[in-house]
Amino acid sequence: MTSFREFRGVESWGNDAWKAMCKVRESQPLVQCITNFVSMDIMANTLLAAGASPAMVHAVEEITEFTALSNALCINIGTLSPNWIFSMKVAATRANELQKPWVLDPVGVGATRFRTEKCIELIHLKPTVIRGNASEIMAVVGASTGPTKGVDSTQASTDAVEAAKELARLAHCIVAVSGAVDLVTDGKRVLGVSNGVALLQRITATGCAVTSLIAAFVSVNPGRPLEATAFALALFGLAAEIGNERANGPASLRVNMLDALHSLDETSVTSRIRIAQI
Amino acid sequence: MTSFREFRGVESWGNDAWKAMCKVRESQPLVQCITNFVSMDIMANTLLAAGASPAMVHAVEEITEFTALSNALCINIGTLSPNWIFSMKVAATRANELQKPWVLDPVGVGATRFRTEKCIELIHLKPTVIRGNASEIMAVVGASTGPTKGVDSTQASTDAVEAAKELARLAHCIVAVSGAVDLVTDGKRVLGVSNGVALLQRITATGCAVTSLIAAFVSVNPGRPLEATAFALALFGLAAEIGNERANGPASLRVNMLDALHSLDETSVTSRIRIAQI
Amino acid sequence: MTSFREFRGVESWGNDAWKAMCKVRESQPLVQCITNFVSMDIMANTLLAAGASPAMVHAVEEITEFTALSNALCINIGTLSPNWIFSMKVAATRANELQKPWVLDPVGVGATRFRTEKCIELIHLKPTVIRGNASEIMAVVGASTGPTKGVDSTQASTDAVEAAKELARLAHCIVAVSGAVDLVTDGKRVLGVSNGVALLQRITATGCAVTSLIAAFVSVNPGRPLEATAFALALFGLAAEIGNERANGPASLRVNMLDALHSLDETSVTSRIRIAQI
Repeated sequence: MTSFREFRGVESWGNDAWKAMCKVRESQPLVQCITNFVSMDIMANTLLAAGASPAMVHAVEEITEFTALSNALCINIGTLSPNWIFSMKVAATRANELQKPWVLDPVGVGATRFRTEKCIELIHLKPTVIRGNASEIMAVVGASTGPTKGVDSTQASTDAVEAAKELARLAHCIVAVSGAVDLVTDGKRVLGVSNGVALLQRITATGCAVTSLIAAFVSVNPGRPLEATAFALALFGLAAEIGNERANGPASLRVNMLDALHSLDETSVTSRIRIAQI
Repeated sequence: MTSFREFRGVESWGNDAWKAMCKVRESQPLVQCITNFVSMDIMANTLLAAGASPAMVHAVEEITEFTALSNALCINIGTLSPNWIFSMKVAATRANELQKPWVLDPVGVGATRFRTEKCIELIHLKPTVIRGNASEIMAVVGASTGPTKGVDSTQASTDAVEAAKELARLAHCIVAVSGAVDLVTDGKRVLGVSNGVALLQRITATGCAVTSLIAAFVSVNPGRPLEATAFALALFGLAAEIGNERANGPASLRVNMLDALHSLDETSVTSRIRIAQI
Repeated sequence: MTSFREFRGVESWGNDAWKAMCKVRESQPLVQCITNFVSMDIMANTLLAAGASPAMVHAVEEITEFTALSNALCINIGTLSPNWIFSMKVAATRANELQKPWVLDPVGVGATRFRTEKCIELIHLKPTVIRGNASEIMAVVGASTGPTKGVDSTQASTDAVEAAKELARLAHCIVAVSGAVDLVTDGKRVLGVSNGVALLQRITATGCAVTSLIAAFVSVNPGRPLEATAFALALFGLAAEIGNERANGPASLRVNMLDALHSLDETSVTSRIRIAQI
């Protein structure tokens, strides 16, 4: 298991995370989301709670214009269908033309050939960040490089790190792997983020929501997508930790987490963000 | 800036608003909603909390029959696509044939040519009420009458009043403009509604939700669409005020607001509704 | 009115309901949902709170593979359209081929000819369970057997029992009728479930949500679909009762109910489940 080495103090990461959060609140980036139906409510509310501005726009008739107005694009294949995939491709292509960041959430990749194939096609359109769970990231790498060997639970973490690094190098992007410790890599450096609570897994679309938050953070920190991704993951996780203090289960956690995200303050962020170089 | 002149006491508006609310609870109007995916949950729950009955039905194969069963129709172009626009037009046409009220929420109009064009086409189908924010209403007027001059912040309110009146006269309908003070006009009279809390803007689709509530209120007060629209806006805003008393952020405000809407009572409504003729 | 006869003690049903709940939590069945847009959030969160794993997958391009991965299928016609109906049929056919249970929620059947026709076509694909309210179940039976006579309020309950039994025999499936007392029948035996609170009717898609829960429960109790259906209804109702103890209205009830569902324990379940043979 890769060991944790904190290469600078908690406060330093916390300060930078706080600055990134302030930038989102000040500039209120417009994040265009082409996402699955299940996630739309919590994704829009997450972006609003963080100070960003969500827009769910998927009609190909208006994407060329709308993506030009947006500051970032979030694409999520959860409830994909051919029409929506076409819109996603048009939007991603447009984002690239205009050098706007776009973030991919490869929900359920590996479950079906259609899903894997469409996901790989999207990755060819050069996302700035890909965020998934370990099995999704490993499925993408497997589909790109051939079948992976079976993963047993003791090796899962190490394998996820290596898969993430490989995908980051292959796709020239940042790769984030959600888990007990979230991993973020550009293919060389690896950051670990250990904010968050396990109960998040019992709320639908929290992974989708944090991917949209990554889009917002990357858009206001264009030169530092690796760090911006880690900040979004850490701040969302911290909001969950604070929300969980008063929660009685997954539904009240969801409410409290969004409330906490909206009112995150400098003291909490600088003292409680847990990011480390791995 | 237009000055406020209350032309009758608070209690009088409050009494009428309360009567309108009771009519909704008693007759439980069936409101057909063809709306964006983001808003569906909060819209349905808003209508249910207010005592109305929501139905999200968009298949063109059943609209002719279903619109005939409904008491009002709410059309919202948030996540529009050509198929859905077609359904919206069929439903609006059918509502007109049957003299049922229908309400339009022109979400994001002005952002793209497609959106503006489709919105104008819908307005030609004679909505009973159009509700949007100031920039949306001004975009509609601009698209109908040619480009508007730039609006600076000090003039925004006055310009919104004039734009709303112009649109109301052009489209022969009620126009409502949401803002710190909501404006409602039939082209001649203008009512101002100052219930509500700023934090509503950090919850997705609250504007969409109140538009559906307007549909419910107009359906049970057919002769008074101007007042019914003001009542829906005021009662939704009042529920938000009550909900906000115990809220810690946008997500708990959403929960508390819907709870408060469900249990609004005569005392609160008659004493706290803030409507004035402008 | 049919009288209630409890043919075994509360504890016995409670013990079995608790065992069924534990099976869901342990095996975490994957429930594929092809459902209406309004219900997706609460349905996914209900399944997650109960320990199951939801997946909203509707693209016909991947259904053949995905249904094979799932443990159960939930089909809901709330916001139906021709494309989605086609996906529903492909999925139901595939579930039958693989002998996986599938559950149908005939939302709004009877309101339009299109809806009724499509619903009947789906029933020909042999659902394991059909769950609706009394008017929906009676509409299905009426469409299958010709027009029913008018139903007055005093007879509604009895008529619903007879309609449910008739539908269960015609369609060779379990039929559940939601109401003040939920009825579950295989055409011969009838179970009554009296957990739940009336305020659930003021939250959208709670019926849809419990239908998906039935799918989860039936999948882990394959030999006892009648009892599994009653358990899902009773446990969801019990969660609502517990949630309602601290609720101020429908929105907080929704939050508290999902929290309560997540933390249902043996004591509550064995002592408070109210199931009786009718």
